Formats: sequence, structure tokens, C-alpha cells
Amino acid sequence: MSRRLLDNLRIATMAGPHGWGMVDGAIGIEDGRIAFVGAAPAGWQGVEREDFAGRLATPALIDCHTHLVFGGNRAREFEMRLEGATYEEIARAGGGIVSSVTQTRALSEDELVAQALPRLDALLAEGVATVEVKSGYGLTIAHELKMLRVARRLGGLRPVRVVTSWLAAHAVPAEYKGRADAYLDEVALPGLEAAQAEGLVDAVDGFCEGIAFSPAQIGKVFEKARALGLPVKLHAEQLSNLGGARLAASFGALSADHLEHLDAAGVAAMAAAGTVAVLLPGAYYFLRETQAPPVKLLREAGVPIALATDCNPGTSPLTSVLTTMNMGCTLFRLTPQEALAGFTRNAARALGLSEEIGTLEPGKRAEIAIWNAAEPAELAYRIGFNPLHALLLPVHGEKVAEGRMRGGARS
Amino acid sequence: MSRRLLDNLRIATMAGPHGWGMVDGAIGIEDGRIAFVGAAPAGWQGVEREDFAGRLATPALIDCHTHLVFGGNRAREFEMRLEGATYEEIARAGGGIVSSVTQTRALSEDELVAQALPRLDALLAEGVATVEVKSGYGLTIAHELKMLRVARRLGGLRPVRVVTSWLAAHAVPAEYKGRADAYLDEVALPGLEAAQAEGLVDAVDGFCEGIAFSPAQIGKVFEKARALGLPVKLHAEQLSNLGGARLAASFGALSADHLEHLDAAGVAAMAAAGTVAVLLPGAYYFLRETQAPPVKLLREAGVPIALATDCNPGTSPLTSVLTTMNMGCTLFRLTPQEALAGFTRNAARALGLSEEIGTLEPGKRAEIAIWNAAEPAELAYRIGFNPLHALLLPVHGEKVAEGRMRGGARS
Ligand SMILES: [Zn+2]
Ligand SMILES: [Zn+2]
Repeated sequence: MSRRLLDNLRIATMAGPHGWGMVDGAIGIEDGRIAFVGAAPAGWQGVEREDFAGRLATPALIDCHTHLVFGGNRAREFEMRLEGATYEEIARAGGGIVSSVTQTRALSEDELVAQALPRLDALLAEGVATVEVKSGYGLTIAHELKMLRVARRLGGLRPVRVVTSWLAAHAVPAEYKGRADAYLDEVALPGLEAAQAEGLVDAVDGFCEGIAFSPAQIGKVFEKARALGLPVKLHAEQLSNLGGARLAASFGALSADHLEHLDAAGVAAMAAAGTVAVLLPGAYYFLRETQAPPVKLLREAGVPIALATDCNPGTSPLTSVLTTMNMGCTLFRLTPQEALAGFTRNAARALGLSEEIGTLEPGKRAEIAIWNAAEPAELAYRIGFNPLHALLLPVHGEKVAEGRMRGGARS
Repeated sequence: MSRRLLDNLRIATMAGPHGWGMVDGAIGIEDGRIAFVGAAPAGWQGVEREDFAGRLATPALIDCHTHLVFGGNRAREFEMRLEGATYEEIARAGGGIVSSVTQTRALSEDELVAQALPRLDALLAEGVATVEVKSGYGLTIAHELKMLRVARRLGGLRPVRVVTSWLAAHAVPAEYKGRADAYLDEVALPGLEAAQAEGLVDAVDGFCEGIAFSPAQIGKVFEKARALGLPVKLHAEQLSNLGGARLAASFGALSADHLEHLDAAGVAAMAAAGTVAVLLPGAYYFLRETQAPPVKLLREAGVPIALATDCNPGTSPLTSVLTTMNMGCTLFRLTPQEALAGFTRNAARALGLSEEIGTLEPGKRAEIAIWNAAEPAELAYRIGFNPLHALLLPVHGEKVAEGRMRGGARS
């Protein structure tokens, strides 16, 4: 039995549905799990105390929506747009999602790993211990599988839990233009079976939007996920309201994400299904959207709100969870407490990992971020400043365990 | 004679009034100054080549408007506002600028140095070699001098050039409420003389706004600066249009800063005077302003545009120059080229240091940032990612020299 006693901490446990859950005192760790929070019980007197000098402790952070694996970047497109180019001119120059698909297909697994690692390291440097990574820039069976193999490999190269999502229903590739259903039948659905057989997929995602897939098409993907016993989530109501959140809720989705155009019916459906609202202020900021998600309605209905970077090359080239917290507050009017819950308690729920991580409570995995801060509100308040003192994971220097996820097929 | 030859670089020289000034090749350094950019001339064959593998080189970055020295933070105020507190409730709880003044007055020089250093280090980590620091949270002669002594000390503790501004005309302190002129006569003006006598001040700044000082009051401060031979700059047209930019231009100001409410007459006056427009998107973002500065008018009139973090605890708790570049593009529609010019060529001009730094040209100081990037547009494109490979300063590991500034009185 291995024990560790972290003492002299100001602890934002994030336990309970609201509030910081502040406790001053110690955290006891036994065999990689939290044994107690607060005052050490009898039997802990002999354990050496590690003194953290009154620093702030929070659950290690969880980025529950990223497209971290992709080839190249879209800086030239960003530049062209600011120099006044039209979308047509950008498309003619090879810009848009097509550009990321081309660059992702062109790279080997090793090359994609090399390009993704600096982005992953930027997240880890800010206290992240769990990151979700989606496929969706391959858009052939082989290239989608390649992306998720890369995601799994990242989890072996760094002390981070990588949770994968199959997002073949991200865009219709050029070779299937006007034949979205054929793309689903020939690529997205059989590819999902292959991905599951290879142990590459933890959940199934889709992009429900006029420029992507209809609710009926997403329904087909979700039926396949259900048949395979995989949980679902959805990019929904980002640019318009197609009822994606209601559809996702009807499949008991873990989360519906973006949600700028979510309506009251969608909120009610999510509340009833226990579906988490994952808000992505980075894309809202980068795309200069003006309609923010209905935070008040979500709050009133008791829908858990998570936040994520949405790290991707086209609409959110963002690798800072702390900046995302600030954006959640500044742009969406979340409170700092809601912003931190969005990267801890509710992000864990959006990944189906609530029993393992997301709060500092007895029984949870001891994944703890220690900050050079006195109050938890400081984390969301600053922009571009990283006060992380230490990220403590169950076995120091060793990869974080996989939680509920299968770990057998990792390359 | 010491020589250094940096080879295999993609160099954004930022020379000339527009464009990146791209040159592929080498940079030769002789006695701390750039000897050539491009191909090595005769006589350099024997110098050892340092190979930078095709990386991007830019001038080291310059943050030309910060309030980096202050006590405490305003995270609690940020939290209260998001929890729905009114300005009155926040003021009653001790919030607002009063809170920063109280906390700054309460701290010793050593304590202020200790609190400012992590913020300074965050800037340096992103390639900054020159930072402007203002007084303005002391608001007594002794505490204003203390702030600038701290600023000077920061320059001795890190390899950075610190440029100071006397900003006693930042706010009217509580003890002078309703007696702004008395405050100027008894504190701001005599304090400026004392600061200059101590070698603490490189320029004189003010805050021209309904909630701060009128143009007539600022004029009084500027007259004193003129009498002392000090250049001026001004916080102008941030929340309303009082004609501050025109006033500043009439004194040949180095810069007018913020400028959200600048009008055509102000633009014309700045263009005629050669006054730099320092835009501060961090405050615009944090305060959720909706009127952006007139970038098109500034461009058309040929007014040089700089960008800065405006790092301060109340309206821009921002310590990332790269995030500021992205905000300049995303929120103000600058091009990535303009954003980089705003932290190099034009920032140097806003500090009166154009002859020394801000571009990579023969004769300039060899202050060079090397980036893990292929194209300079990547610097503004990403958010929360730091691609700095190395920051090269004239004498490795030694403090940057002071340029045109007096350096004698530094403690
Ligand atoms: Zn996404
Ligand atoms: Zn300022």
C-alpha cells in the first residue's frame, strides 16, 4: 500500500453540483486514489507530510473536445482572410477544411505524432491530465484509423489519458461531393466497425449542420454506435438550429457541443437526458460569432456545462485551457467557478469518466493540479499567464491509467 | 571585435514601412549590432556558422504599453462582476482602481519586484526584449517613485530593456477627490521633477478621460514634461472622444494609446505629428467594448500602428504578446503582418527607439527572436501556443543595453 500526504493546501474540490467546494487542509492518497480531503484521519500520523505552503489545489484539468491530431496549419488562410480575400478566393487557393484533410492524409503516423506533440505539451503545461481527441480530417477508413492510432500513441508518449472519438461524419470529402449518404455507408459506418475492432474508439461524434450532415444522417451514425455499444456526442447548433441537441439527447448522448443556436426545447431535452453542454468559446471568438449559447437557460435547467479548447486548425487554433476559461467568462458570462467546473467536474461527465476523475473526493483518482494562486477565481481571471506549480498524477512520472477505457489495443 | 553568424534562417526583417521584408539566409552580428542580413559578404568566410535549420527569425518583440508593476490582483472583482454584482457593490467591497492603489502602496519595493517578475517572465518567454512600464498605482510622490524604482530594478534582474513612463495622472486618489488640479500641483508635477532627478523616467503619460483628467489638465502635465525635455504619450479616446489624440499630437507625442473613439480629425493630427497609434485589444476584449479603433482610417493616413498588452490588473490582466497579436487580428482586423509590426517596428517607434531596435537591418542592435515556425503569419494565428525557439540578445546571458535611455540611476 503506497501512501502520500499533501499538506497545507487550499483545495477547490469541485465536489457537489455547485460551488468551489473549498476545503483547507490536506489530501491523502492511497494507491493512486484519494483517501481523504481535509484533516488527516487516525492512522495517517506516520506518513510524511509534503508541505505546499498554502497553494491552491484543484482537480487536474480535462479538455473534453479537441481535434488535436491534424497535419499542417491554416495560418495562410487566416492571413488571406485578414488581407480581404473572399471565401471563394481562399477555397481556390486550397484553403478550408479540404486543406487540413489533404495535409493530414499526406502525413505518416510518425509525422502526425510529431506535429501533435507540441500542442499536447502546451495543454499539459497548464495542468491537463485528460484530453479527448477526435478523428475527422482523414475521411477515408485508412486515414481515420491512422488519426486515432496517433491519438492512442500520444497517450503512451506523455503522462495523459487520451479519450478518442470517431468523427468520420465531420465533413463530406471531395470525392463524395453530393453523395453524403454513400460516404456514410462506404466510409464512416464500416470504418467505425474497424476502429472498434482495433480498440481505437471510445465514443462516436458527428457534425450536424447545413454544411455537414443532416439529423437523419447523424441518426444513422448514432444507430450504428448504439449497435456497437458506443456512447455518442454531437457538434450541434453551432451555426444554425437543426435540432441536433434534441437528436443527441434522444440517444442519451454524453454531450452536445457548441450550442450557440440551441433553443429551449433543446435545453429541455438535454436536461432530461443528462447530456452535458460543452461550450467552445475559442471557435466563437475566432469566427467572430455574435450569438452566444443560452447559458442562462442551461443554468436554469440544470444542464451541466463543460468548456473545451476545440483545438483545431480552422476555427479554433487554441491550445490554452486557461485562456479558454477566461473566454468562457468574458464572452459567455460564465462565472469563474463555472469555468473551472467546465474543465473538471463537468468535463469528466462529458467523457463518461465522472466516477474516476473531475473532483477531489475520496475514491477518485489522485490527479491533482497545484497552482501558485490563492483563490480559484485567479485561474479564469488572467490571460496568457500559467500559474501551474505542479501536476500530480497517481504514479509519479508514469502514464496516467486509462480509467474506464479499454487500454489493450494501444500501439 | 566579436562576430556571430546565424545561418539558414527565414528572416522577417520588418524593414521598410510595409510588409514582412522577407529575406532567406544569414544574419551577421558584429559587436552586438547587425552587420548584414542575407548573404554573407567577403570577410565572413572564416566565421563559424550557427545553423538554425530554416527557422523563422524576427526582431525581438517590444511591449510598448504595460502597467506591469502593481500589488495584488483583481480576481475577486472579476468574479463578483460575473456573479452579477453592480459597480456600486464592487466599489463598496473595495474594488476598482482604488483596490490596486491600496495594494500597491502597501507593498515594499522588494515585494513589488517579486510580484512583477512572474509577469515579466511570461512576456520574456514569448520573445520580448523591451518592455515599457508605467507608474500610476501609487498616486503619492513616494509611491510613484517606488513603482518606477521597481521598474528599473526589473531591468537589472532580467535580460530586458525596461522603458519607464511617469503616469501619476492616471487617476485622482481618494484623498484628492474633486480636487484633481490640486493633485496635479501637489503630486503629479513635483513628483515628475523628483523622478527625473533620480533618473527614473523616460517619458510622461496621462489618462485623458471623463473619469480621469481633462485635456486642460493633461496639457498642464505635458507642459511640465516639455520643460523637462521629456517626451509624452497619452491614454486617449478609450471610452469617449475628448480630443486627447489631437492634444497629444500637438505636443509631438510619441504615441496616443487605446483610441477606440478616435475621429478623423484625431487621425489627421496624429499623421501630421508622426504620433504612433498604440492599440490595446486586451482591454477592449476584457471590457467587452464594441467600438473598435478606426484601423482603416489610421492605415489610409499612414499612422504607424503598434500593439501592446496593456498588462494591468483591472482591465487587461494579460501577459501574452502572442495572444495580443491574435486579438489585434481577430478583434481589430489587423493583418498578421501589421500585428507583428505592432510588436516590433512600430512599437520601437512608440518608444522613440527606432534607431536601435524594431527591425533587422544593418546597424540595429542584434536583438533577434527565433521561432519554430515556417511563416511569420503563424505567430498571430495561434492562440495560447508559444513557438519561441530562442531569444538572441547582443551579449549572451547579459542584460540588454539601454539604448538611448539614461542608465545611470538604476538601482
Ligand atoms: Zn469540434
Ligand atoms: Zn494603460
